Parts: sequence; structure tokens; C-alpha cells
Amino acid sequence: MSANKRIKVAILGATGSVGQRFIELLSDHPWFEINELAASDRSAGKKYCDAVNWTMASLLNKEIAEKVVVACDPKLESKIVFSALDASVAGEIEESFAKAGYVVISNSKNHRMNKNVPLMIPEVNPDHLEMVKYQTFGKGVIVTNPNCSTIGMVLALKPIHDKFGIDAINVVTMQAVSGGGYPGVPSMDILDNVVPFIGGEEEKMETEPQKILGILNANYEVDFAKIKASAQCNRVNVTDGHTECVQIKLKKKATKEEIIKAWNDFSAEPQKLNLPFAPKNPTLYLDGEKNPQPRKHRNLGNGMSATIGRLREDSLFDYRFVVLSHNTVRGAAGGTILIAELMKAKGYLDKYL
Amino acid sequence: MSANKRIKVAILGATGSVGQRFIELLSDHPWFEINELAASDRSAGKKYCDAVNWTMASLLNKEIAEKVVVACDPKLESKIVFSALDASVAGEIEESFAKAGYVVISNSKNHRMNKNVPLMIPEVNPDHLEMVKYQTFGKGVIVTNPNCSTIGMVLALKPIHDKFGIDAINVVTMQAVSGGGYPGVPSMDILDNVVPFIGGEEEKMETEPQKILGILNANYEVDFAKIKASAQCNRVNVTDGHTECVQIKLKKKATKEEIIKAWNDFSAEPQKLNLPFAPKNPTLYLDGEKNPQPRKHRNLGNGMSATIGRLREDSLFDYRFVVLSHNTVRGAAGGTILIAELMKAKGYLDKYL
Amino acid sequence: MSANKRIKVAILGATGSVGQRFIELLSDHPWFEINELAASDRSAGKKYCDAVNWTMASLLNKEIAEKVVVACDPKLESKIVFSALDASVAGEIEESFAKAGYVVISNSKNHRMNKNVPLMIPEVNPDHLEMVKYQTFGKGVIVTNPNCSTIGMVLALKPIHDKFGIDAINVVTMQAVSGGGYPGVPSMDILDNVVPFIGGEEEKMETEPQKILGILNANYEVDFAKIKASAQCNRVNVTDGHTECVQIKLKKKATKEEIIKAWNDFSAEPQKLNLPFAPKNPTLYLDGEKNPQPRKHRNLGNGMSATIGRLREDSLFDYRFVVLSHNTVRGAAGGTILIAELMKAKGYLDKYL
Amino acid sequence: MSANKRIKVAILGATGSVGQRFIELLSDHPWFEINELAASDRSAGKKYCDAVNWTMASLLNKEIAEKVVVACDPKLESKIVFSALDASVAGEIEESFAKAGYVVISNSKNHRMNKNVPLMIPEVNPDHLEMVKYQTFGKGVIVTNPNCSTIGMVLALKPIHDKFGIDAINVVTMQAVSGGGYPGVPSMDILDNVVPFIGGEEEKMETEPQKILGILNANYEVDFAKIKASAQCNRVNVTDGHTECVQIKLKKKATKEEIIKAWNDFSAEPQKLNLPFAPKNPTLYLDGEKNPQPRKHRNLGNGMSATIGRLREDSLFDYRFVVLSHNTVRGAAGGTILIAELMKAKGYLDKYL
Repeated sequence: MSANKRIKVAILGATGSVGQRFIELLSDHPWFEINELAASDRSAGKKYCDAVNWTMASLLNKEIAEKVVVACDPKLESKIVFSALDASVAGEIEESFAKAGYVVISNSKNHRMNKNVPLMIPEVNPDHLEMVKYQTFGKGVIVTNPNCSTIGMVLALKPIHDKFGIDAINVVTMQAVSGGGYPGVPSMDILDNVVPFIGGEEEKMETEPQKILGILNANYEVDFAKIKASAQCNRVNVTDGHTECVQIKLKKKATKEEIIKAWNDFSAEPQKLNLPFAPKNPTLYLDGEKNPQPRKHRNLGNGMSATIGRLREDSLFDYRFVVLSHNTVRGAAGGTILIAELMKAKGYLDKYL
Repeated sequence: MSANKRIKVAILGATGSVGQRFIELLSDHPWFEINELAASDRSAGKKYCDAVNWTMASLLNKEIAEKVVVACDPKLESKIVFSALDASVAGEIEESFAKAGYVVISNSKNHRMNKNVPLMIPEVNPDHLEMVKYQTFGKGVIVTNPNCSTIGMVLALKPIHDKFGIDAINVVTMQAVSGGGYPGVPSMDILDNVVPFIGGEEEKMETEPQKILGILNANYEVDFAKIKASAQCNRVNVTDGHTECVQIKLKKKATKEEIIKAWNDFSAEPQKLNLPFAPKNPTLYLDGEKNPQPRKHRNLGNGMSATIGRLREDSLFDYRFVVLSHNTVRGAAGGTILIAELMKAKGYLDKYL
Repeated sequence: MSANKRIKVAILGATGSVGQRFIELLSDHPWFEINELAASDRSAGKKYCDAVNWTMASLLNKEIAEKVVVACDPKLESKIVFSALDASVAGEIEESFAKAGYVVISNSKNHRMNKNVPLMIPEVNPDHLEMVKYQTFGKGVIVTNPNCSTIGMVLALKPIHDKFGIDAINVVTMQAVSGGGYPGVPSMDILDNVVPFIGGEEEKMETEPQKILGILNANYEVDFAKIKASAQCNRVNVTDGHTECVQIKLKKKATKEEIIKAWNDFSAEPQKLNLPFAPKNPTLYLDGEKNPQPRKHRNLGNGMSATIGRLREDSLFDYRFVVLSHNTVRGAAGGTILIAELMKAKGYLDKYL
Repeated sequence: MSANKRIKVAILGATGSVGQRFIELLSDHPWFEINELAASDRSAGKKYCDAVNWTMASLLNKEIAEKVVVACDPKLESKIVFSALDASVAGEIEESFAKAGYVVISNSKNHRMNKNVPLMIPEVNPDHLEMVKYQTFGKGVIVTNPNCSTIGMVLALKPIHDKFGIDAINVVTMQAVSGGGYPGVPSMDILDNVVPFIGGEEEKMETEPQKILGILNANYEVDFAKIKASAQCNRVNVTDGHTECVQIKLKKKATKEEIIKAWNDFSAEPQKLNLPFAPKNPTLYLDGEKNPQPRKHRNLGNGMSATIGRLREDSLFDYRFVVLSHNTVRGAAGGTILIAELMKAKGYLDKYL
């Protein structure tokens, strides 16, 4: 696709921290072009550089800086909209866009568990996209990205689940502060500290995997995977990258070597379609007893690879391991862009362009 | 006991970080008086202030600063010695002291699992002290303090185990850098990072609880408690205070209220004996969904209380909760001093004085 | 003074971070008793424990927790009020209290540079209290505490200024996040980062010292000290404790030894009066090339001592050194309490009780 | 230059943290190819992956991982060697290489102030390279890179010095822990802390600028620039990126706009020669009162740009500003590579190839 034929997209909630990450990641995208930036009424009408407190580790692109922020009304030129809206408003706004004929690809939690809305990790359940055909929001559709702490874990579980079946998951997370948005976690709360609680996070991690790993049935709804799950979520003093200690019970016996091979061989539809944001390795096992680590490994695969380490047998479950993924790239804006790429490559966007 | 009749004690490994904490905590102790500071040959012969890189958050006491460090040979005047020796040398040195008639109360791992050596948490297994009578090191004895990450967890488990019985423990830790000693964890390893590995730590957490919670049998050895345990240990960017996510399976049903009451009512022999380092609450449950936190709660009970929060039902185990304890106070020097106080109060030191 | 005759005091802005520190520090005060907690209308009417997000590293006292927060209206029983109000409202509220006959001892910036309001560091300018007699707010008075970054520096300058005279001050600060209040500095802004700007801080550090070190003239106003000052203020990743690199030009020659002796000998009216919050050493010089450090030394003198280190000659000025002080104890609540103690001891509170 | 004709280079001290950064930065270099990795006898003979504790935030290249480390003897095939040796051994080893006919481009301090050794910042003093023709080490030469904290500051000073002349520099630094190497700064020393001392750093910052900004005289030695300098150096809790508060006195008057223009227009020989590691902007002024910040701006220009902010008038000097540069890229390995590129482009390497 030549640069001047790129698909125009809008970002809803463009001034927030996920919105900023969308802008950073889309700045050179081969298929998509940032056309409109939408945000709350407080920001609408201002130049983006005046409306935003830019917190990314890169300079704000000058062309973007000069764009005037528009309101989150379904009157945009771009028909493809990425939603980085706060959950307090995302539900209603996203529905209004879908009703008005827009394709909404959302990072917000509001519609994730809706029975007609696909909850997508492109490497895990690409077939679930088919659900959008049976949505009744209106002429448009809503597609969702899972919670940031769910994505890395489910990427790691997918190749194991396919080969050996998973019966139970136990997970304890150590999550980065960027997951809390901006201003988000006060420094007084996390400096020299751990906060053993993140509102709503444990519930998401205990329920989303069953939908993502579920089977699309004849009614184009998902039969949830029957996996018992327990999650305990902690905030730690890390900028980016969620680290998760996972224990699993398997249906079939597996050796350590088989599991590691399953991870290192894992390649799925995004890789076959050669999608721009698809990492060569969706899951990558790292040798070395101290791996993975957020500061060292969060950016592997341009922040789109889940890195895994320390696979070992467990006395209460079958295996335990550590998985790490970049929470605002793979776990938010990047993962959502990959969904859009999958939709484009498979023709789901065609009728909206 | 009047100040001038305090018991003279020595510290082995006095220049290391646990050694420094012993000095800080013993500086005003009503029963014990720091008489001798012993360290490696590299330090012996120097004034303490010249041998030490003092890292405590208090000024080094001037009298201590001027003491000349002696070698770790069993030729000390003090008959009671606290060992903060590195595990690479502790085994041999501690045995040489015991052989020569000293009472060695050790924070090192070397003799913890020896069948004649008590592994003590004074509130948990005070009766295990009786094991020293059957030791064969020589005229002296060796008593040990558990690993820093074990102590907080077992304090929290004890009142539950007594009332309802524990079948299985699953724990994931987030441990402070001070647990790695000094210089210990390089800042490049932990700033903006998590290290999902601490050498030997998981094995200690999986084996020590069974001994501590075990029953002293007729041979004055310990019948280990039959509790399956799985531990995953992580290093996080915190100075002091180990935070642990614990899940438990119980033998008998218990309500949430009963468990919280068990913690808040917990009082044991150190409290009854009114030992100087015994906190009013060995275990203290904190309401509030974000508790406990290391920066806020590690110093409660002068660093000797384990604080607990977030008790809730678990879909894979019966209950889960978070426990926090100060790893270099309760988990190391302070815990060891409390053992010495218990020994003094119960007469175990009498024949050595 | 017997405990049941303690002076009843109120705290304005009791739910903020300085307000919380007031509560913590006053909880066992021998002279003052927390009687009323006042805060914004949003909090008024609630129990304190329901209105506050308690961030101190201590448990909230149960009696305080149950107190009902009142509005910041001058209808309080307590005649002595500590103000921890936000600058956006402090000006008007404090004046209304002064007009109504209250003694307002304020940590807010609003009245600091008012020509009839003393800007007090009890060890530095105790005689400036006399200014209150000429105030015209009404029957009450307003007394102020300097900015947190000013106090440590001026404490260090005072004994030098008295003996040798200071012509110029150059200072670069590295300030703790607690200085920004709560929620204050977002963690995303300061983790693995330095922010080379703190709004309004440089101006305060460049102007307040001249008033504090000035001379009370016959009109009971202050003739400002003629000291040129340049300040550059940075926020760093530290919880508590402002570290400041100071360079000075002197009027008279001084040796390094004379300056260090001036600091270590410094004792002023609060020490002579034996005020409860007066540290033995208002300024304390620490040997050792790496001192002072916030984590290690901020709590010396119960957080009321300024610690100083690295005095050395300078090629552009005469001397340079590093000074550290606890910004929310000596630099805020503790410093303000010491002012109240000085007022009590010198009879300034008598007519209000 | 085609990839298969790249110049073979060796890295001395390849296992240390600067050595690792050399490997990372040279992995895709268009002109240079890592041929040999040399380190201490402890590492020599081992595969690199077994000898190194890889701390970079990237995976170790597999080809490099398999290379066998060699000793630091002047028997290497590569004639161009980058030295990342520890200062304790660099002096002797570098001389032995120069004597044996190698081109040594060093990041170590040992020969920086030698009167025949150029101390190079390619944008600042490219003509100083000529000094190597008068060296007497032997057939080879030694060229040096300044201290990491000097480089960013001098880059910022150069365009001002050229246009307006600098009389005096006052600088206070806040330096990243990576500047201390690995294991380097213990986490217990820097977490929640500032260390107001870095051994030898202040002396380097006070003396190196005069040489770098000096004039090559007829004897091919440097007449030092006559600039008085005072430096105070602090270690802060940041991974990478030194932040420096700089004050300057100028010989000629300059407006704020003129100075900012001088920075933003600054382009020098590396830019003209289009050297691979030359950033478009060696110095870049950022608007916004909170800039520059290490986490956000250290990687601008691939870590080779010095970013500057907060230029404002000063009451004691003429101007003050904040400069930030990446200490292990521009300040160490990257800066050294740029010197090698300059030498290549200007023919200084020809006779060694």
C-alpha cells in the first residue's frame, strides 16, 4: 500500500497515556494514517500539543502537535477508530460510533465480555473476528483488546493449551505503573513500595482467558474454555512491562522440552499474513535463571513479544513459569493495532473504506 | 536487669549488612551488651568504623565505632554470639564456636535443617529450643533463625494452622533488595525492573515451614508438618520489607472472620514473657484493600510485626492473602535477638554466663 | 504541663499530606493536643478515616480516625490552628481566622513575604516573632514557616552568616517527591527520571533567605539581608529529604575547620528553651565523602536536624557543601510545630488560651 | 563500504558494561565489524556468553555469544581497538597496544590529559586529531573520549563558546547509575536516595573542558581554554542519562534567542561528513519548562544528541540551563565510535588497514 493511500484512522481518547502510545506507534505505520484526534470536551478545539501532557520517551511529531483535537462525536471523517477512552465514558461513546457505522477497535474494558463482541489476541483467536457479523450495534462494529495483564499470559498459554490442554491457571502479577494511566499511580504510593491491589484487575484476569481461549460456536458466540483461574495482582515500581508468575495444571502430560518448543515454534495467523506489527516470535523462551526481566526484555519484538522464562515443575500444579509483556505496547495500543491489521488483511475493513 | 549487669555478646560477621543491623538493634538493648565485634581477617585489627561501610539509616554509635574488630575465632570473652556470617564460612566457624562452648544464635542457613538444631520463630515453636540439650557439637550449642522470606509467612500461618490445619501453601514473593546484603543487588539490575529469581530462596521457603511447624518428638527431633508447598521468589525495587502473596488449603472449614480473629488475637510465649523485642501483635490484620505495603507497614511493632491484608476466598485454594514483614529486622537480626531473649528468659543461657 | 492541660489545637487542611504529617507528629505532643480537624467542604462531616487517604508510614491513631472533620470556618474551639492549606485557598481562610482572633501558624506560602508576618525558623530568627504585635489582621495573628527547600539551607547558612557574613548563595536542589503533596508527582514522571523544574520553588529559595536572615528594624519590619542568591530546583526519585548543593561567598575569611565548628556548635533559643521538637543539633556536619544522604540521614534529630557534608573550597565561590533536611518534618509540619512551641515558651500564646 | 569489507575491530574490556554497550552499538555498524573480544585473564578462553553477565536491554547477538574471548595482549588481528578497560589496567595495556602498532580509541581516563593525546568530541575539536601524528607511543596511537559527564556539557558549551566566549562554568550533576559500571552502584545505596559524591568526577569535569575547548598550537599540543570551572557531582536513581544544571559567564553579551539559535543550528564536521553515528542535532533545545528529562530524552538522536532546556538568566552568572545526555551512548561507547568514524573519514586509519 503506498503511503498516500493509507487508511485514515481516528484515535478516541487521544490525550491519555494509551492514546499517546497509539500516536507514537502509528506515526510511521505503513497501512494506517492518523487523521483525527478526539478527546474530551476539555481538550476539543485545542491544538494537540496544548491539550496533551506528552509523557512518551520520544518527541511529539510536529504534524500531530498542530492537529486540532475534536470531540468524541461520531462525525469523524475516518471510519476506523481506535478507542483509548476511559472506561467511565467508553461504553456509551463506542456504541454511538458503532451505531453510526464506524469500526471501533477498543482498548477499553466496557464491551469485552459482551456476547457478540470479539475479545481478540490476533495470534490466539483470529477466527473470533467472525462474531462481528452478528453484532447489532448498528452499521458499524466493536472489537476489543483484552486487559494488559491478560494478554501476555494468554499468549504464553495458547500454544500449551493447543497441545496439552490447560485445566487450571494460578497467576500472581507484578505490574508496571504505566498500566494505571497518567497521572495514575502517585509516586508516593509506589516509590520503595509494592501495592498489592489493582482495582478490577484480578477479576479480568480470571474471566477473560476463558473467552479468548474459547470456541466459536454455531451461533457465533463463544463457548468459554473450562479453565479454573485465580489471579492476584500487584503494582510494582517499574515503568513498563508486566511480570507474571504463572502456574498451570495440564490435561495431558508434557515434558519441559515440549513446552519450550511449543513456545519457540509458536507462529500464528498474524505471522503468516506478515502483518506489520506481528513479531517474529509471539512467545519467546529465554534461558538463564534470571529471565525474563521488564527493563531488559519488554521491548523485544518491538514490544510485541511475550518473553518467558524459568519453566520448572511445581509441587502443587504441573508447571510454573514467568511471563513478561509490554503492557502499553502488546498489552494496549500495539495489540489493538495488530487487531486492526488482522481485520484489514482479512477483509473486515473493506466495506467501511 | 540493671544496665551494668547486661550479658556480654559478640557479633560474628559484624561488618556485613545483617551484622550492622544487629549493632543498630542491640545498641540500647536492656539485657544484652555488645562486647565484641568479629569479622573476617581482612577487617580484624581495624577499628570498626574503618572496617565497615555503614549503610544503616542511623549514625554509627561512637563507642562501637572505636571498637577493634577481632577475628572469628572461638577465643572471645562473650559466651553468647550472634552469627551474621556469610553461608560460605558460617558452617565451620559456628561449629568451632559451639565446640568451644559458646551459644551460637545464627542467622545463617548452614545448620537450619540439621536434625538436632532448632529452627526458631519464638512465637511459633518455642518448645523446639529443647532440642539443644541433645546437640553434640560440644559444650556449646547452635540455634538458628529461618530464612527472611519464611519468617513472615510462617508467623501468618501459625494461628491458622493451630486452629484449622494447613494442607498446602502456595506463595509468590516480592522481596526487598536488603535481603541480598551489601553490596548485594546491583542498582542496574533492579532499577525499573523485577528479577524473578533469588538463588536458593524457593527451596528454603518450601522446606523450612515444615520443620518450624513440626512437632518435637520423643527423640527431641522434629516430625515435619505434612504441608505441601510451592514458592516462587522475586526481587523487587524496595529497600526493606518482603511482600508475599499466599494461598492456603485448610483441613477444616474456616470463615474469613475466624481467620482474621486468629491473627489479631495471636499472642504467644514471647508476649507472655514480655520479651523486649516481642511485638504486641506478632500478626496484625489491616483492613483496606491496598494493605499491607512495605513502605508504610514494615516498621510496625518496631519491625517485628507481620502485617496481613486482603484475605479473600480463592477458586483454586481455600484462601489467599498478602503478608508483609521486615526482612532485616523480624526476618534477620531482630528475629535472632528475640530467640536469644527467649533463651535467656527460659534459662537456656544460664549455664554459659 | 500535665497531659490533661495540653493546649487544644486545630489543623486546617488536615487530610492533605502535610496535614497528615501534623497529625502524626502531634499524636504524642507534650504541650499540644489535636482537638479539631478541618478540611474542605468535600471532607467536612465525614469521619477522618473516611475522608483521608492515609499515606504515612504509621497506622492512623484510632481516636483521630473517629473524629468528624469540620469545615475551615473560624468557629473552632481551639484557638491555635496549624495551617496545612493549599495555597489556592490558604490566603483568605488564614486571614479570616486571624481576623476572628485565632493564632494561625502556617505552612502555606501566601503570607510569607507580607511585611508584618514573621517568616520563622526558630533557631535562626526567634526575635522576628515580635512582628506579630504590629499585625493588623484583627485580634489574631499569622506566623509562617518557610518553604521546605529554604529551611535546610538557611539553617546551614545561619551559623556561617553570623560569624563570617554571606555575600552570595548558589544552590541546586534535588528534592523529594513528598514535597509535591499527594497525589502530587505522578510515578510516570519520576521513576527512572529527574524533573528539572518545580513550579515557584526557585523564586522562593532566592527571596525567602533574605527575609529570614534579615534584621528586625525599629518599625518591627525586616530589613532584608543583602545576599545575592541563585537557585535551581530539581525533583528526584526520593520519598523524603531534600538534598542541596550549596556554594557561598563570604564577607570574611574562614577556614574549613572554623565553618565545621560553627555548624557542630550551633545551638539557639529552641535548644536553650529545651523545646520538645528542638533537636540537640540543628546542624550537624558528617564526615565521610558520601554524606549526607536522604535515605540514611533525613531522620536524624527526629527529622529536625539539617545534616551537612562535603565542605570544600570552590574555584568560583569560597566554599561549597551539601545540606540535607527532611522536607515534611523540619521543612513543613515539624518546623511549624517548633514555631508554635517557641511562641508558647515565650508567652506569645498566653492571651489566646 | 560493502558489508564484507567492513573494518575489523576489537573491543578491550568487552565483558564490562561499556564493553557490552560497544557490542550492542557496533552490531550493525556499516563500517566496523566486531572481530575480537578481549577481556581479563579470568574471561579469556571462555565463550563470550559464558564470560559475560549481559545487562543490556536487548538480546545478545548469537554470533557474538559464541565468540571466544581472548586476552588483552597486543596480538590481535584487528588493528583498530576500542578500549573499555577499567582505569586500573587501561594505562599499561593501551600503551602496549599503541607500541605494537594498534590504533587505540579509548573510553578510559588514563591518557586523557597526556599532552600528546587528543581528548575528542568529534563535533567540538575534530582538528585535535592531528595530535596523533606527534605521539611517541610507538607505531600505533591512542585517542581518548572524555568523561561521560563532561561530554554532554561541552557539547552544549561549544556553540556558545564559539559565538560569545565562556569565562566561567558552574555545574551540578545528577548522574545515572550506569555511569558506575556493573555491578557498580549497589541498589541499597541509591534506592530512595541520592549520593552526593562520585570519585574523581568533579576533577574531570573541572579540567577536561579546558583541553577539549582549547586551541591546537604550533607544537601540536593544546593551549587550554581559560575557563574557570566548578563541578559538583551527584549520583541519582536513574538508569541512563546524566542531567546537569549549568551556569555560565560569557565574554560577550548574548540574548536568550541567540543562544537557543546557536544550539539548534549547531552542526559540525561529523554532520557534514555524514558519519553513521552523527546525530542530526548534536545539541537540541527543548521548549517546555520541565525539559529535558532522562527517561524521555536520553535516546533522542539514537542517544547521541545532547538535549537542553530551561535557559534563563541568572543572578550570579549570566545564564543557566539544563543539559542531558546519554552517558553510555554519547558519553561512552557511542562517542568513542563517533571518534573512530571521524578518524576513518579523515584518513587517520588508512595506514593501519
